[in-house]
Order: sequence, then C-alpha cells, then structure tokens
Amino acid sequence: MASWLPTLKTDTPEEGYDLAVKLARVAVKLTQPDADVRDRLRPEYAQDSNALIAASQVVATHFATVAAANGYWQNKP
Amino acid sequence: MASWLPTLKTDTPEEGYDLAVKLARVAVKLTQPDADVRDRLRPEYAQDSNALIAASQVVATHFATVAAANGYWQNKP
Amino acid sequence: MASWLPTLKTDTPEEGYDLAVKLARVAVKLTQPDADVRDRLRPEYAQDSNALIAASQVVATHFATVAAANGYWQNKP
Amino acid sequence: MASWLPTLKTDTPEEGYDLAVKLARVAVKLTQPDADVRDRLRPEYAQDSNALIAASQVVATHFATVAAANGYWQNKP
Amino acid sequence: MASWLPTLKTDTPEEGYDLAVKLARVAVKLTQPDADVRDRLRPEYAQDSNALIAASQVVATHFATVAAANGYWQNKP
Amino acid sequence: MASWLPTLKTDTPEEGYDLAVKLARVAVKLTQPDADVRDRLRPEYAQDSNALIAASQVVATHFATVAAANGYWQNKP
Repeated sequence: MASWLPTLKTDTPEEGYDLAVKLARVAVKLTQPDADVRDRLRPEYAQDSNALIAASQVVATHFATVAAANGYWQNKP
Repeated sequence: MASWLPTLKTDTPEEGYDLAVKLARVAVKLTQPDADVRDRLRPEYAQDSNALIAASQVVATHFATVAAANGYWQNKP
Repeated sequence: MASWLPTLKTDTPEEGYDLAVKLARVAVKLTQPDADVRDRLRPEYAQDSNALIAASQVVATHFATVAAANGYWQNKP
Repeated sequence: MASWLPTLKTDTPEEGYDLAVKLARVAVKLTQPDADVRDRLRPEYAQDSNALIAASQVVATHFATVAAANGYWQNKP
Repeated sequence: MASWLPTLKTDTPEEGYDLAVKLARVAVKLTQPDADVRDRLRPEYAQDSNALIAASQVVATHFATVAAANGYWQNKP
Repeated sequence: MASWLPTLKTDTPEEGYDLAVKLARVAVKLTQPDADVRDRLRPEYAQDSNALIAASQVVATHFATVAAANGYWQNKP
C-alpha cells in the first residue's frame, strides 16, 4: 500500500500548506477512525468559530514543520 | 490560476506579518468553505475575547515560520 | 524491559508521524495511569470536535520534533 | 506612512519583549478593527484568568521569534 | 540543596521524555504551591479528557526543548 | 531604572526555568496592570486545573526560548 506521507517535500509553498492541512486531519482520523462519526461532527465544528481557529492552529504548527523541511522553498523562482 | 502562496518571502517584516494573517485565515476557509457561514460567524467571534486571542495565536505561529523563511529580514536597512 | 522510546529515528515520514501519535498518548497515560478510566474517557472525547482537534495539536508538536530529529528524511528516495 | 513593524531588531531583551506584546495585539486589531468594541472587551478579558494566560501564550510565541531574530542578544554587555 | 534541574542532558530519549513531564509539572507546583490543593485537583483533571490532552501538549513542548538539547540523541546506538 | 530583563543568559537550567516563569507572568501584568485585580484572580485560577495547565504551557514556550538562548547550557559541568 502506498504511504499517505511518502515525503515532506513539496514543489511549492501552496502544496506545502495543503500537506499541513492533511497532516492535521490524519491525527483526527487516527483518534476517531469511524468516518460516520467524523461526518456527523464536521457540520457542527465547521460552524464553531473556536473549533475553526483551533484547527487553523494545528495547520500552522504542521506548516512550520513542512516549511522547514523544504528549506522554506528558498530556491524556487 | 495564480497561487495564493507563491512564496514565503516578503520585502518587510510588516508584509511578513500580513502574510501570517493570510496563512491563518486560509485554513479556516478550507475547513469552512462556505463564505456565507464564515460571514455569519465573523461578527460573533470578533466580539469574543477568547476567539480574538486564539486567532492571534495562530498568526503568531505562522509569523514565526514566515520570519524564519525571511532570515528575520536581517539584511533590510 | 525494552524502552518504549529507544530512538526518535524512523525510516519514513509516515513512521515518524506514528511515533508522534505515540508520544502524544504516553503523556496521557502518565497522567491517568488507570486504563479503565482512559477506556471510559475515549468514546466521549472521540466524539468531541474540540478534543479531537486538541489531540491533533499535540501530535503536530511532537511531529515537529520527530521530523527535526530525522533531518526531515531528506535523504530518503 | 511609517511601518508599525520596520524591523524585528531591538537593542535589549526587554524591548524585544515589548515588541512581542505589540505583535500579539496587532492581530487582535486586524480581526476586530473597531476600537470601541475592543475597548468594551478589554475590562472583561482583563479580569478573566484564562484570557490573561492565553494572551501571555501569544506573547511567548512572538517572543521566541523576536529573540531568535536578535540572536538572543548574545553580544549585549 | 541539589537542583531539581541540573542539566537538560539525558542518556536516552525515554529519560528525556520523563524530564519533559517533570518540567511540565514543576510549573504547576510554582503556580499552586499547596500540595493539598494539587492533590485535590488531580483526580478531577485526571478524568477530564481536555485536561489530559492539554497536559500532554505541555509535555510535547518541553520534549521539543529537551530533544534539541540532546541533539536528538543522534549518537546513541 | 534597572531592566527586569537585562539578559536571557542564566547560569543554570534551573535559573533558566525561573526566568521562563517570570517571562510568563510579565505578560499577564502588562494586560492586567492592576495588582489588586491580579491578587483577586490568583486564588481562583490557582485552583483551576485548566488554568494551571495553561500557565504551564506558557512557561514551556518561554523555557524553549531561554534554553536556546543559553545553548542548552551545554558547557555546564
């Protein structure tokens, strides 16, 4: 089976951000593996400011890691 | 389509801060893609101290990344 | 007795992520050593968006450490 | 118009700390631009332990950035 | 009197983790020096998912510091 | 007037930890300058597990900065 995380390298900062979002979501899946439960929770927290901000915080933490792993994409044009 | 995040480089610390704010907001948009819902939530959390502080925390985390990516703007006059 | 944490080195980013999840859970076990209590708490927080996001935040913090310890798996194919 | 953030450099750690406080507050202003609302919120959260601690957390995150930008003021007497 | 924190160096990652737990707990003791009060609070938060996760977050932050201080135990067998 | 923060350098890790505690508290004082209010809040949050853990989190963030500023006290005996 292919790895869901073969590398932290991405071509662009935007793809790095998308990877950070993915990294944030996988931990939720590992804690709550039942997709039905997650689907039920989603509309609720997607309308809860505090949950949205907290989710953004997790993305920020992962983005710091992904950006460092990519040398902040310094050599990109 | 142009990338919303072509680079982490900015000319000045202030622009780096603005980028951090943008990075914080995009994660919210990705979790709650419906602009109407976000518009409805905004006045509520913009009057909630805890939400304002939590949002500021996300900006702080992203600003650390952007500042590192820019070498802390050491070579700026 | 074998150590539960002999090294921070992992072969792949995905295994590094799994280690981050483990690092997050061990602290919970140390604070609440009673497995029965933890088992009782699990279904509750696994259905609580805020708890799921907070757990994901802990994983993100540990993943940053594990990724740095592995040089971001730069030399992996 | 002069920038509110021309540099992350400060002469002393104490000035660096003050800059961290400023960095924390600007994000609040950007999310809630209405000074009247902010003035209304202030007495409330200034008497709320959790809000005070959360605000201190934001300052801590920014102080880490400012301190790194200043090389931890190693060359100061 | 011997210092409770003579060094951040540990022989193994596992001991580093234990030190991170200790570092997290000392701050609680400094804020609430009364052992009786802490003993009273413990059973309560040890059954509160959110508190357990928040405590794990503090450990994660300290573990990052301890791991960096030990060069991520790179030279260990 | 002497600075409350002349340097981030400390002789030992323990003193570095004490400095982190100080750094955490100063932000609270800057947000709530009234000592009487702070004295009134203290017994309340000192008996609140979540507040104690959150305060410990702030200390952890500052300790990371202080430890880095001191090169993790590597050259100490």
